[in-house]
Amino acid sequence: MREPPATIGMPVVDVDTPALLLDLDAFERNVARAAEAVRRAGARLRPHAKSHKSADIALRQVMAGAVGVCCQKVSEAEALVAGGVRDVLISNEIVGAGKLDRLARLAHEARISTCVDALPQVEALEQAATRAGVRLDTLVEVNVGGNRCGAEPGAATQALARRVADSPQLRFVGLQAYHGSAQHTRAVAERREKIARAAEWIRATRAGIVADGIPCDLVTGAGTGTFPLELASGAWDEVQPGSYIFMDADYGRDEFDDHWPPFEHSLFVWTTVMSRVEGARAVVDAGLKASAFDSGMPLVWQQHGLEYVNVSDEHGVLRVAPGARTPALGEKLLLVPGHCDPTVNLHDWFVGVRHGVVEALWPVSARGAIR
Amino acid sequence: MREPPATIGMPVVDVDTPALLLDLDAFERNVARAAEAVRRAGARLRPHAKSHKSADIALRQVMAGAVGVCCQKVSEAEALVAGGVRDVLISNEIVGAGKLDRLARLAHEARISTCVDALPQVEALEQAATRAGVRLDTLVEVNVGGNRCGAEPGAATQALARRVADSPQLRFVGLQAYHGSAQHTRAVAERREKIARAAEWIRATRAGIVADGIPCDLVTGAGTGTFPLELASGAWDEVQPGSYIFMDADYGRDEFDDHWPPFEHSLFVWTTVMSRVEGARAVVDAGLKASAFDSGMPLVWQQHGLEYVNVSDEHGVLRVAPGARTPALGEKLLLVPGHCDPTVNLHDWFVGVRHGVVEALWPVSARGAIR
Repeated sequence: MREPPATIGMPVVDVDTPALLLDLDAFERNVARAAEAVRRAGARLRPHAKSHKSADIALRQVMAGAVGVCCQKVSEAEALVAGGVRDVLISNEIVGAGKLDRLARLAHEARISTCVDALPQVEALEQAATRAGVRLDTLVEVNVGGNRCGAEPGAATQALARRVADSPQLRFVGLQAYHGSAQHTRAVAERREKIARAAEWIRATRAGIVADGIPCDLVTGAGTGTFPLELASGAWDEVQPGSYIFMDADYGRDEFDDHWPPFEHSLFVWTTVMSRVEGARAVVDAGLKASAFDSGMPLVWQQHGLEYVNVSDEHGVLRVAPGARTPALGEKLLLVPGHCDPTVNLHDWFVGVRHGVVEALWPVSARGAIR
Repeated sequence: MREPPATIGMPVVDVDTPALLLDLDAFERNVARAAEAVRRAGARLRPHAKSHKSADIALRQVMAGAVGVCCQKVSEAEALVAGGVRDVLISNEIVGAGKLDRLARLAHEARISTCVDALPQVEALEQAATRAGVRLDTLVEVNVGGNRCGAEPGAATQALARRVADSPQLRFVGLQAYHGSAQHTRAVAERREKIARAAEWIRATRAGIVADGIPCDLVTGAGTGTFPLELASGAWDEVQPGSYIFMDADYGRDEFDDHWPPFEHSLFVWTTVMSRVEGARAVVDAGLKASAFDSGMPLVWQQHGLEYVNVSDEHGVLRVAPGARTPALGEKLLLVPGHCDPTVNLHDWFVGVRHGVVEALWPVSARGAIR
């Protein structure tokens, strides 16, 4: 793990770059706002830790009322449990005996649940549970329109639920239902339509499972781009937003309405101008290895006339609009990353800042935990 | 640093996923072919370590004849020197007193050189050299058409060279001249034109410096996409290709001719099918956090009818063409990453493989070394 770019008490202007800055006031407001919205809806909040990969942040979410967190990988779950998190849903299929053995062992230390979407996964999970001497909480993932993982709604999902419920090594917990591609559908109306269709599938599938004599008390899913819609539908019992604590440039392009709490940008890449041409460009020290570019360029935060237009491994080129000020050599700027999750994964530390001073240094404890 | 996904002697099929696999035979041929091409041209090879971030690989390049390596960040240079590399050029401007102090201290341990493109950088470098009690090898970076960093050719560069040469704390070593955007210009003819123009600027600028009474024995630059052109021009004394050891899907789209050694893909992301729909799609466990997507999707290696069409944080969706085989659940596949450098930076280990068996585990020693 690399050295942190700051020390506690340091003025933010002295923080080395590139670094991941977290505006603690905005972050805390985001944490509280989501918790309040989910509480008002009478549902449970299980934030997705794939966004932050930080036990420190997960514990703060739990203190604010979350029932636990989600993650995607066994190694992420291991890092979170090692950091004190007691309830982790791996909202994903885990394939491979080595990974399943680690998952089953982890269930001795914390409440761990995971997903299946096909029969061979159920059998492999049973074998791992037997080897570890545990009974594993298992959800069936349903494809609610994202066409990624998940069994089809209806008969396929019901058959898998039956199979899990009948297993002495597993415990059927409910359904995982996440519509990934809906999160970044720009118009609220279109997102609403997608979630309405998903809700119908979920209701019918849950009814089929219950009619089969299997209790099905948990439907969990949703992300920052849709969770108020899942809550309003009444078809979900638990929601899994992740990015809401940070927001990013891509979520900034989504349309939101009054159903969403007013989440704020709290996560920034702090960068230094390392070369410049007056009136034309400023080159900053944060490129592909300091910010994610899969969802577009970062935004230059609150600097009129500066646009991040070109990226290479360790450089970003900012175009200076006619008449705008060219930043000075050595000047530090804030970037709003295009996509928060893969940006966080490039860094080893969150530098928590309040009133211009470094207040917290939190390790990205599951950074690189890709297995 | 995370646990390695393999042990020495393990069959490759048992290596956990996602993992970064290095085909050692192809890698060694790439290392030897570049070394031979540069030697035949009578020039010096200083491979760019920003591609591999590995002291193990840097030392192999030096054993094959490289004079040392380049990197972009002080923290990369620190990791390389700690791993035994004795000659590192930071082919980049370093801004900020803290970083410059680390750079100057490192010059006590190895031969370190760095670049400037503006007067304030020269002054800051002098101050750091004074504080550390060293004389620092300094190059002036010239903008040869990439419009990123670099002083303009001609008078601006000559004035900076004069200033560096006159400094008691610095030693003027020569010119850094890298045309970044030319590397991924697809047609050889267009790349040749860009490098020909750059060569003219370099010749004129070097002549001006020499006419001013300053020896200028080193022009260094070039990348995998252009270095045979720089060598053929005679205007460069040293070339800095990085990606040639790995190649990637993006370089696979460049046109090459007989001037280039026949470099092979040696770097792969090893991934597991974790969900599937017969005849439609296979979902793999390598997404945005296991491969870089700034230069397009990865290629599925030597699998007919499988196309990586959709990525999310921890998933990749492969479309199965009509009539093609749908890979089995748990099957492992090789991906050729879109862009090698930022892909390597996502991993902690290279898993070196020969004849289907793990032969080497090399840490990505400068992984995350972004400062």
